[in-house]
Amino acid sequence: MSVPADDNSTSWIERDAAVVWHGFTQMSAYPDNAPIIVERAEGRELIDVDGRRYLDAISSLWVTTLGHHVPELDAAAHAQLDRVAHSTLLGNGNTITIELAEALAPRVPVDDPHFLFASDGAAAVEQALKIAFQFWSNQGVVGRTRYLALGGAYHGDTIGAISLGAGGFGTDVFDPLRFSALRAPGYDDPTWADGAIALIETHAAELAALVLEPLVQGAAGMQITNPASVRRVVEAAQQRDVLVIVDEVATGFGRTGTLFASEQCAIRGDLVCVGKGITGGYLPLAATVASGRVFDAFLGPDLSERTFYHGHSYSGNALACAVALRHLQLMDDWDVLANIGARAAQLDALLTERVAPLTAVAAVRQRGLMVGVELAPPAGGQRWGRRVCAGAVDRGVLLRPLGDVVVLMPMLTSTAEEIDRIVAVLVEAISDVVSSGTDAPGGAPA
Amino acid sequence: MSVPADDNSTSWIERDAAVVWHGFTQMSAYPDNAPIIVERAEGRELIDVDGRRYLDAISSLWVTTLGHHVPELDAAAHAQLDRVAHSTLLGNGNTITIELAEALAPRVPVDDPHFLFASDGAAAVEQALKIAFQFWSNQGVVGRTRYLALGGAYHGDTIGAISLGAGGFGTDVFDPLRFSALRAPGYDDPTWADGAIALIETHAAELAALVLEPLVQGAAGMQITNPASVRRVVEAAQQRDVLVIVDEVATGFGRTGTLFASEQCAIRGDLVCVGKGITGGYLPLAATVASGRVFDAFLGPDLSERTFYHGHSYSGNALACAVALRHLQLMDDWDVLANIGARAAQLDALLTERVAPLTAVAAVRQRGLMVGVELAPPAGGQRWGRRVCAGAVDRGVLLRPLGDVVVLMPMLTSTAEEIDRIVAVLVEAISDVVSSGTDAPGGAPA
Repeated sequence: MSVPADDNSTSWIERDAAVVWHGFTQMSAYPDNAPIIVERAEGRELIDVDGRRYLDAISSLWVTTLGHHVPELDAAAHAQLDRVAHSTLLGNGNTITIELAEALAPRVPVDDPHFLFASDGAAAVEQALKIAFQFWSNQGVVGRTRYLALGGAYHGDTIGAISLGAGGFGTDVFDPLRFSALRAPGYDDPTWADGAIALIETHAAELAALVLEPLVQGAAGMQITNPASVRRVVEAAQQRDVLVIVDEVATGFGRTGTLFASEQCAIRGDLVCVGKGITGGYLPLAATVASGRVFDAFLGPDLSERTFYHGHSYSGNALACAVALRHLQLMDDWDVLANIGARAAQLDALLTERVAPLTAVAAVRQRGLMVGVELAPPAGGQRWGRRVCAGAVDRGVLLRPLGDVVVLMPMLTSTAEEIDRIVAVLVEAISDVVSSGTDAPGGAPA
Repeated sequence: MSVPADDNSTSWIERDAAVVWHGFTQMSAYPDNAPIIVERAEGRELIDVDGRRYLDAISSLWVTTLGHHVPELDAAAHAQLDRVAHSTLLGNGNTITIELAEALAPRVPVDDPHFLFASDGAAAVEQALKIAFQFWSNQGVVGRTRYLALGGAYHGDTIGAISLGAGGFGTDVFDPLRFSALRAPGYDDPTWADGAIALIETHAAELAALVLEPLVQGAAGMQITNPASVRRVVEAAQQRDVLVIVDEVATGFGRTGTLFASEQCAIRGDLVCVGKGITGGYLPLAATVASGRVFDAFLGPDLSERTFYHGHSYSGNALACAVALRHLQLMDDWDVLANIGARAAQLDALLTERVAPLTAVAAVRQRGLMVGVELAPPAGGQRWGRRVCAGAVDRGVLLRPLGDVVVLMPMLTSTAEEIDRIVAVLVEAISDVVSSGTDAPGGAPA
């Protein structure tokens, strides 16, 4: 894709790099990595400041479900703006927040669910870990102060969340600030479940909670496990009265083929964290969903110490809840889960046929519409992940890697043609990088 | 205010309590504490499900600035919905986010500012504390791993944020999860600055950063200090190369009389956290603003360990940024700071004349339009804060206390008549509680 005569991107990138600090991004290299500066979007396409269109094959970082600029979601936002954008949930309520919680209640994999809202997904995880901790303290149980988390785990970037996380992405530097968690193997180890169960058996009496991402460890590079293993581990924990925190922030809202990945595992978390897709990718909203049993442990006299003294200013934001409510209805009305099933099967077949056999590909891992294509670069590191994705972007398909794992995260409403295109572009981009030779400069993308 | 014949509130409150877990709220007492269930709002009034109107004198928990359902802010949201609600900032940009950062850059009290966006204010604090920590590590400086924070400090509820916080609101229960911070006195101690400076002098070599709320410690009960003390402490830190994190989440965007409280103190933070009022109270948006010097310490080879590997999915959310940009323009167009000055002076005079002399009032603390009225209940605790606020709500003015401190947080566009009304209602509500006798049941609000 050549730069058009009326190039606005260059100046926008300069302006961007001068004032915006992008997360998970080395800012000295940012302008050279051909970022897309988005001005508007339609459906599954982002449109940049030069009018170029990109198929958003990462769902704007795993959040967009139905599409951008969806008339029905826009209408829900417009209607709520005519009522109120936000009113506080501290000690008071808002009708749209109640309606969203009521609509979600029969759908979330939690018994007698209670919704504590936040905005960042990491905040939902922090709420869950604090609730699990205080759950025991409120009941006078001493010693249940630790967490069991998995290798490769990622639960967000705040201090509590990186304490549960396995320390990838250079977070080791923050070790002095993290509390320590017990660590089982991750999904890249086929025996992870046995390892986790052994730790549960040994340490149950000191565990406040087990925390895991059901079926897929996303940030670990789309490491996949099977439903039976997840279920075995969750059962082992719950049989020993260890609370289970299920982090559905990435897997929730259809991404793995069911509304929640927990359904495939037949598990019911004591605490479930949701975020990302909850608003269809429109607005920041996250929630910690607590079971009735957990919730009840916080009931007591008014102003007493049994209360959960935690709350974010924008908790239950009305505008975000209005979009989330309409989004949940559309998931049903449009039978989005059926499309996910069809597109996931198509993608699986295409990847098996065209991508997995490539010598440049070490592994393909997929669950629903979450895919990791692990490249096999020559020793020494050639930044293949970065370069393959740059090649895809150059062909109008937005991808972003996790190291040398190319992530495919198509929207849940993707068409068969779009899935074809994503795979075709991926194959071309891999081919380009391979044929450019292993001594190609790693710096600027193709 | 009697309940109208067509009472919808009762059933809405029941529905709410069944599924929504409200932050900082004892849910067993929630239905009995006469919560307002908001359906819509106009200007500075919230309207409940029975059509009752309440003057929102807490700005929906310290976030609303200009009003609810402001035509100009609604229009900005509508216009952005016609472009795109969200696109990822991880490795890519969005025009509206760039425009917001550019508009804020000359206004924030930071040299050569760079904006790392999040959604929850606590996440902005977490970003700041992690950036300060890695700032030293990136430069090979060993041992600067601690933080100096103040007594009474509140910086949010995530684990990193409560580690910096002083442990109020029953957060002591989470001590095993918190990293330890050095603790200076808080603003309730007139010698706090000397105490803080002494700690800086002794511990500079092990301090990553000093963190403080400029001028007002809000959650501590609106504890106030003077600009000169803040400046002395900040200078002491910066002279010894201790980074300064200024938490302007509550004080920013006009609340204390200037756009940022830092301006009155004549300080420039190395890292400044903003949130709450940034979108005028419409949408969750927060930012960590880093100085050029701090930002530069993270520049290095692409994919290197100098990168800040932290990012929230909805960072730089386009819809929230569009509202925030328009909000900043309106602050200027409407000369909101002039109104804050006038209303703050009026409020000061009224409180001095009518509230401070009351025997039921221990102290009145005010800076701009942040006010704490500390009640003086009889020994044994009569929940006066809760009861006075219930009396105000019953008269159509929404207040919410911090313990026995009644918080007044009028919107920045409040009229003289509204300020009169807030004080008049407060005086009546205090009088009612006092005259009800100290042996009144503390349970149900009047």
